[in-house]
Amino acid sequence: MSVTDAIEALAALLGERLSTAAALRDSHGANEAHFATALPDAVAFPRSAAEVAEILRLCADHGCPVTAHGAGSSLEGHHLPVSGGVSLDMTQMDRVLAIHAEDMDAVVQPGVTREALNDALRGTGLFFPVDPGANATLGGMAATRASGTTAVRYGTMRDNVMALEVALADGRVIRTGTRARKSSAGYDLTGLFVGSEGTLGIITELTLRLHGLPEAVSAATCRFPDVDSAVNTVIATIQTGLPMARIELVDEMMVRGFNLYDKGALPEQPHLFVEFHGSPAGVAEQAETFGEIAAEFGGAGFDWSTRPEDRSRLWRMRHNAHYAIRALRPGKRTLSTDVCVPISRLAEAIGAARAESRRLGLTCAIVGHVGDGNFHCGISLDPKDAGEMARVAEFSETLVQRALALGGTATGEHGIGIGKRKYMRAEHGGAVEVMQAIKHALDPDGMLNPGKLLP
Amino acid sequence: MSVTDAIEALAALLGERLSTAAALRDSHGANEAHFATALPDAVAFPRSAAEVAEILRLCADHGCPVTAHGAGSSLEGHHLPVSGGVSLDMTQMDRVLAIHAEDMDAVVQPGVTREALNDALRGTGLFFPVDPGANATLGGMAATRASGTTAVRYGTMRDNVMALEVALADGRVIRTGTRARKSSAGYDLTGLFVGSEGTLGIITELTLRLHGLPEAVSAATCRFPDVDSAVNTVIATIQTGLPMARIELVDEMMVRGFNLYDKGALPEQPHLFVEFHGSPAGVAEQAETFGEIAAEFGGAGFDWSTRPEDRSRLWRMRHNAHYAIRALRPGKRTLSTDVCVPISRLAEAIGAARAESRRLGLTCAIVGHVGDGNFHCGISLDPKDAGEMARVAEFSETLVQRALALGGTATGEHGIGIGKRKYMRAEHGGAVEVMQAIKHALDPDGMLNPGKLLP
Repeated sequence: MSVTDAIEALAALLGERLSTAAALRDSHGANEAHFATALPDAVAFPRSAAEVAEILRLCADHGCPVTAHGAGSSLEGHHLPVSGGVSLDMTQMDRVLAIHAEDMDAVVQPGVTREALNDALRGTGLFFPVDPGANATLGGMAATRASGTTAVRYGTMRDNVMALEVALADGRVIRTGTRARKSSAGYDLTGLFVGSEGTLGIITELTLRLHGLPEAVSAATCRFPDVDSAVNTVIATIQTGLPMARIELVDEMMVRGFNLYDKGALPEQPHLFVEFHGSPAGVAEQAETFGEIAAEFGGAGFDWSTRPEDRSRLWRMRHNAHYAIRALRPGKRTLSTDVCVPISRLAEAIGAARAESRRLGLTCAIVGHVGDGNFHCGISLDPKDAGEMARVAEFSETLVQRALALGGTATGEHGIGIGKRKYMRAEHGGAVEVMQAIKHALDPDGMLNPGKLLP
Repeated sequence: MSVTDAIEALAALLGERLSTAAALRDSHGANEAHFATALPDAVAFPRSAAEVAEILRLCADHGCPVTAHGAGSSLEGHHLPVSGGVSLDMTQMDRVLAIHAEDMDAVVQPGVTREALNDALRGTGLFFPVDPGANATLGGMAATRASGTTAVRYGTMRDNVMALEVALADGRVIRTGTRARKSSAGYDLTGLFVGSEGTLGIITELTLRLHGLPEAVSAATCRFPDVDSAVNTVIATIQTGLPMARIELVDEMMVRGFNLYDKGALPEQPHLFVEFHGSPAGVAEQAETFGEIAAEFGGAGFDWSTRPEDRSRLWRMRHNAHYAIRALRPGKRTLSTDVCVPISRLAEAIGAARAESRRLGLTCAIVGHVGDGNFHCGISLDPKDAGEMARVAEFSETLVQRALALGGTATGEHGIGIGKRKYMRAEHGGAVEVMQAIKHALDPDGMLNPGKLLP
């Protein structure tokens, strides 16, 4: 019973789809964030639920850890095999299995990316709205309960996963949920596996809710004299009940990053990037109402993107925030924080974070899905500068503790992974033992993604 | 260690709020549906989470079953203490603890009813939309994952419970979730307890999502030549993406029941009851689009309820369906079935149910939250007529098996309770063992609501 034995057995099962090549181990042990590299002993590429189940059975027999790997775009190190073992690369399970246009759902394998799904939906009048920025796999997005710019209108993965097929630690394969829009039939296992970060089972199939492409779309940028004015515009907009499709805050430092990364020329002031979906008349009405609210708070310089290619450029710029932050200090790495607070406390939380980053002398750019009360501080850091790392750690700790004190959460959408385990107790108190009891019930040997989520 | 000892200990704790009076035991052992009476040994009326926790500890010490009781409006017998023990009546925990208007959430005790919450929200511009018809307690609605007429627009309890306080079987009290709009911080325990029917813990506090009262509301009834035309109108409406606030089907037998119960004079034809929420212009646009779709399928005789009191009368009529079905055969009882299918299969499912009820000679009225693919067949029955009971059982079995075969669920909103346990295996397969493992992890002695949900 050893990892070596497990790899031998897996090689017999998978042939060339089990690899111990250094380049593959390196790529599967790397990450977009600031975590240390953590190499798997091998990388496996299953092609079916049956293969995933067999891999899990073999790994269970040999006490070999298994960590799922999608696009590798996690910002909290979810996919890093910190205890070694097998990196279970799901990207060859990349088929769209069914599109039920009349029911507005699709059935996909976990390695399908959100862009691939939307490509497959072309011509149906439907789309899958959840958009975390990166072209992540849908399995990874479900496992981390991802959301992003459109969650304010269309919800998160919690709201858009209808059913799952999951391989359990002992190789059983179960199905959760149905294609019905709602159900009261027993415990919500779909909801339990969504956001479980590969610690309770491996998602082998997803049934996803689709949405009708809006008849009309309109997007704009709008600048504000200061961050408070922009945030107060958001609060008033949400409280008015305006069905915003996206409402994103970028502060002046983030704008500077965009300009550097993308050779842009946005005025270096706080901005809101907004988008409206609806009928032509509805979109016009929404835009007018939003314009009135923004004007009350000093919003000006509306720049409308009416053509699809202009909107694509706008949101591509926004989605490149992670790289734009790197442009602020070339050659450095980035900590992307992620808290979410009740919207009435948003101005306070963002204001305090900005003051704190100034006090600590950090390069900090703020972007936020502010309609949900969710924002990120992108902190440029040099892992070799121990003093800076300590100040970054202090900033991050204060940010999270403040979010919790304001009634919020340590992570709105990036997940717990490695980086936020230390906050689980502060956020959940005695509920942590309930999570541990569930983990123990489903994965008693702790084989699935060890070192993640639970403290 | 006995139920008698438990009751003695509870009496010392609760004084007069622990009762073994026959009248109270009778009322807590009765039900709105067709289930046999099941008397508790005693009824307890806690007033705080701490008291609930202490009750659970004492009952655990003495091996005494505990079954929570809200308004008692369950249609699947959730609140019936089929193994005796204590009926935990939550109705004295009826305080609205906080209304955070600016964050659009409210914190309530579990015994607050949905109407009481909406009364408390008067003047805030906000409302709690989930509306199962009965004036149920919010704790009961969360425990059964209730929904109702407005779910097509505002979602179910799954979507509108943000956080919970829960007392566990061993007396620990935990909190799940926060007041943030979204979170990726660990397992979704809120979602796990919502719909767990009091089998995993007792809900002692809820944080609920509120919604802005629409600026404009418009409702109407519209009649159709046959059920298929009405259902096809619904399918086309949903596929068009029209944001219906309510879209309810009633068949001609249900209309007859309404007319009998309420001295009404609706034409005895299938109808849709619809409601639109939005801006004045938005509502007008939605109504026009809906009217065009309905006309294509032969919809006619639009009767608009523009005044609030007319709308209240309309929805009161709809909510009285359970009693209107009784009016069809006075003195008889009712089985209210509840399946939910993908919307593309709705016409087929409803058509087959109507044919089956005719074949079996049953009095069957159909009402449905058809925008979700959810419908109920209200079957009049005489428990003393063994032949009729057998035909009703056959009808119910066929209905559920067909819903499952069409990719649907055995219950869209009424829950499993007693009546649907026999379908859990057919719907969930091996996932049943996962549910059992979770139950065992949280309630190893099976003390909480025994005989419910799990097969």
